[in-house]
Amino acid sequence: MDSVRIREAKEGDCGSILRLIRELAEYEKFSDQVMITEEALKADGFRENPFYHCLVAEIFPGPGEPQGPCVVGYGLYYFIYSTWKGRNIYLEDIYVKPEYRGQGIGSKIIKKVAEVALDKGCSQFRLAVLDWNKRAMDLYKALGAQDLTEAEGWHSFCFKGDSMRELAGK
Amino acid sequence: MDSVRIREAKEGDCGSILRLIRELAEYEKFSDQVMITEEALKADGFRENPFYHCLVAEIFPGPGEPQGPCVVGYGLYYFIYSTWKGRNIYLEDIYVKPEYRGQGIGSKIIKKVAEVALDKGCSQFRLAVLDWNKRAMDLYKALGAQDLTEAEGWHSFCFKGDSMRELAGK
Repeated sequence: MDSVRIREAKEGDCGSILRLIRELAEYEKFSDQVMITEEALKADGFRENPFYHCLVAEIFPGPGEPQGPCVVGYGLYYFIYSTWKGRNIYLEDIYVKPEYRGQGIGSKIIKKVAEVALDKGCSQFRLAVLDWNKRAMDLYKALGAQDLTEAEGWHSFCFKGDSMRELAGK
Repeated sequence: MDSVRIREAKEGDCGSILRLIRELAEYEKFSDQVMITEEALKADGFRENPFYHCLVAEIFPGPGEPQGPCVVGYGLYYFIYSTWKGRNIYLEDIYVKPEYRGQGIGSKIIKKVAEVALDKGCSQFRLAVLDWNKRAMDLYKALGAQDLTEAEGWHSFCFKGDSMRELAGK
């Protein structure tokens, strides 16, 4: 088995991250929604006061395999603020390429996010998952997450482009 | 009718905001969850690189009414990051005291959030609502929001205290 390392993303990973963002959106059946560019990912995540942070899962091939280390998964998160608990983390995306699933890479990313959250004084972290993505739901529950939509009835609402401009009178 | 102004919160509003946070949590039947303090709200929202931003709705009483202006509602938001669209806003809390509802104060807060979002180059803003809070759901839909849980099946998951510490091995 190849060895895996979870590390903080560097600016040079943005091309790989963007390819994975597109793969994830395709898997979620929303690939037409991805407007982000590699340049925007670089500017937004790797300047002073970044808008997001990112972990990548990197595979180091075994001896005799020609390929260099490659990024096969990512977890992209940022800090949010709960008026009940204070500073928390939101894991916006987590994704592992299909051919690398079943090796615990997703769990490793989630564990690393939990470590960062604790280090930064956060008491919880949130994420969103599609109800038909049973594999992901089962993983998060097995790791101890609670489904707040199921347990408490939280629905996610969104004001998008036109309705937002109309609201703002622009 | 008293006149209403929506303005950015100041540090001195944190006491009023905390009272409203507690009223909202009570209304949502989660008042035991509120751990935040006035000091934390001041430190987290009113230093360099604040963790959140807040709007307050202030009422100016009519002539002859003895009371000074008072804060009767708030909208607390922060910036998030969509891997599809880039920088966006999340409206964590929106609340108007029961005796001041029906005057359009909630809509005014939402409109102001939309203005801020557009000014900051955001293409959308998100919020969460409890499924039994039909009044709020109807308002957001009437203003043009989409229920992403209903339309697309998004569920909100959360790793809380013990499960997070266990994940992090601490």
